[in-house]
Amino acid sequence: MKAEIIAVGTELLLGQILNSNAQYLSQELAALGIDVYFQTVVGDNMTRLAHAVETAAGRADILIFTGGIGPTQDDLTKEALAGVLGRSLYEDAEAMENVDRFFQGRGVPMTENNRRQALAIEGGTPLPNETGLAVGNAIEQDGKFYIVLPGPPKEMKPMFERQAKPWILERALTGEQPIFSKMLKFAGIGESALETKLLDLIQAQSDPTVAPYAKEGEVTIRISTKALDERAAMLKLDAVEREIASRLPEYLYANVDVPIEQVILDTMQERGLSLSAAESCTGGLLMEMFTALPGSSAVFQGGIVCYSNALKEKLLNVPHELLEGENAPGAVSAETAKVLAEQVRLITGTDFGLSITGVAGPGQSERKPAGLVYMAIARQDADTAVFELNIKGNRDTVRIRSAKTLLYRLWRALQD
Amino acid sequence: MKAEIIAVGTELLLGQILNSNAQYLSQELAALGIDVYFQTVVGDNMTRLAHAVETAAGRADILIFTGGIGPTQDDLTKEALAGVLGRSLYEDAEAMENVDRFFQGRGVPMTENNRRQALAIEGGTPLPNETGLAVGNAIEQDGKFYIVLPGPPKEMKPMFERQAKPWILERALTGEQPIFSKMLKFAGIGESALETKLLDLIQAQSDPTVAPYAKEGEVTIRISTKALDERAAMLKLDAVEREIASRLPEYLYANVDVPIEQVILDTMQERGLSLSAAESCTGGLLMEMFTALPGSSAVFQGGIVCYSNALKEKLLNVPHELLEGENAPGAVSAETAKVLAEQVRLITGTDFGLSITGVAGPGQSERKPAGLVYMAIARQDADTAVFELNIKGNRDTVRIRSAKTLLYRLWRALQD
Repeated sequence: MKAEIIAVGTELLLGQILNSNAQYLSQELAALGIDVYFQTVVGDNMTRLAHAVETAAGRADILIFTGGIGPTQDDLTKEALAGVLGRSLYEDAEAMENVDRFFQGRGVPMTENNRRQALAIEGGTPLPNETGLAVGNAIEQDGKFYIVLPGPPKEMKPMFERQAKPWILERALTGEQPIFSKMLKFAGIGESALETKLLDLIQAQSDPTVAPYAKEGEVTIRISTKALDERAAMLKLDAVEREIASRLPEYLYANVDVPIEQVILDTMQERGLSLSAAESCTGGLLMEMFTALPGSSAVFQGGIVCYSNALKEKLLNVPHELLEGENAPGAVSAETAKVLAEQVRLITGTDFGLSITGVAGPGQSERKPAGLVYMAIARQDADTAVFELNIKGNRDTVRIRSAKTLLYRLWRALQD
Repeated sequence: MKAEIIAVGTELLLGQILNSNAQYLSQELAALGIDVYFQTVVGDNMTRLAHAVETAAGRADILIFTGGIGPTQDDLTKEALAGVLGRSLYEDAEAMENVDRFFQGRGVPMTENNRRQALAIEGGTPLPNETGLAVGNAIEQDGKFYIVLPGPPKEMKPMFERQAKPWILERALTGEQPIFSKMLKFAGIGESALETKLLDLIQAQSDPTVAPYAKEGEVTIRISTKALDERAAMLKLDAVEREIASRLPEYLYANVDVPIEQVILDTMQERGLSLSAAESCTGGLLMEMFTALPGSSAVFQGGIVCYSNALKEKLLNVPHELLEGENAPGAVSAETAKVLAEQVRLITGTDFGLSITGVAGPGQSERKPAGLVYMAIARQDADTAVFELNIKGNRDTVRIRSAKTLLYRLWRALQD
């Protein structure tokens, strides 16, 4: 089974939006065991759209279209596809009801062009849009499969997941066993180091398959297998997971798709522990990561951004002698990191206190190089742990990697 | 002039990476006045790559390839293109020197496969790689233009900017005037509202052109014109800028590509003003935005994340009666926002103090709906200003829009 993804929209060709739909669909199709051989982007133009359909139909078995099914005259995907397939369009009653309901609910009159969103291709299967108005479509013709999805990701993704994927499994992958996957999440290790450790498993392409899975700033491995049912699949997946875990025991923090902050918060909540932070060079980034998660208030209480030395003294009681003077360790030092973590813990009355202080760059500070960072974890029940990092990279990299490394260290501290 | 962008790499077809190169190149070509009619992604496979080259050559005048020119046997872009053009490959001496220099500099022996990175197409122009090893290429044949660039953005972008763009201007756009652009940056207004106000200018496609420019979470308009020289261009661009500014005077914060935080910091630094913040629902996001900018320490001193009510009382002196009790306004209230901003200003000894407190969701809190947010700006020289927001959207949206709106309000306060 070879697939082609065709994203439709002049805004993509102008570079006004990123083609994240192609990435999402590629990942989903790979998980179904379907090879994507081409991705195409074409504008809102009938001639070129028809050309793209014909080119793709000549080289793929499954064509997945996304975009170009909205209400305007520019939205031509269904017309172009119907034209190439020699079929006509009709107004789908159920989809039209969905459009009517939307405008009635808003108490706004429906303009005539919105009827276009209920158009479907004769002889195909309309795919209901649960999060928008434009109906999708799935058509089988001459042994090839055509799927039409909306452009906005918040409509496209649920329609693919709930409507298109089951249709593909039933019609195009008939008789094949369904695919089951598990996500393994890693921290404290870089992507290339991780891949090196698993290279034989990744390259073997055996069953289950082991593949790196792209997610912004995270290192994730997806293991997948085909099986008759979930129980049979899990037996196979668990075996591979154990093999991977045995190679990387200190980096594998979850076998479901959650960030490490979530694992930390869950663990601390279970144990009734509370948390605070004092941030200098990261300026709030670490606290922002915790509070981005719903329910974080059960564990994370707050903290202090002590960007200036004056505030390190005033709000966090760092002795002046530690910060200033010929032989003082300075703001970027193990000593200051230790005081910051211990003081924020005491001041906020929490069980754990975290701290980060460093030179984010560009350029040095206190005659220390950019990328030098000290972090500490203070706790009621153990000695304060201090860590030194030397990070190569720009300001963003130094800040993000500092925060991520401290999260990893905290997770490890909670393991012991 | 019609262009097609062809990104080469199986990792794109597996969804392991996002095709951000296509977006970058589309924006750059649009700025040169070149229409992109198709974007294609193809894997590291000779047959399919050759098919993609032939298809594109049949429908475009300029073909821009990115990726597939590294050292491995999988890197086939130059071979495939040379094959279709009926040309041979040779080892470019200058490029080979660059490769040799790299390995000598590292004291590592060069493996033989790295010679592939110095290959160029006979009769073309090698494009030096200033940030990597693989040499690029530009070829003109039968009135069509072929440009080969590396895949990694940190190599692709400088090579496009410094090597490919001048070549395109000289060879493909011969005799045409160069293009000049200006970026107009807006805050406090949504993208669609902005576009509505400028729709006639955007749709006219007259000279200068006015086009929305996609950047994560920002609203930007690019105005471009062709002219003999910069002075002539600026006369035309400034006139359009004045027209746009007159329609949206309270939202246009810069005519260069900087974030609003930068404008705020620059303005405050000029006036010798200092800044602090107290954040509840945004949990450090606002302070993170300031401290992400190099040099922010000249203005931004730090602040407090008071996520729990206990810390609002303890660290920011919010009266207990304000927070708790049957008829208390509660943590999410204009009263609390006001105290937070005023107290953080006093405690840190800064000229300005900011605060944000709200219900980020999901779900309500204090019987108040998700999306209800109060913000305040306290200052030494004026009354504290308090703002109420009702934001529709998920937790991320509520948090980001709160912070961005407060930045906008602060910028406006500094205008007056």
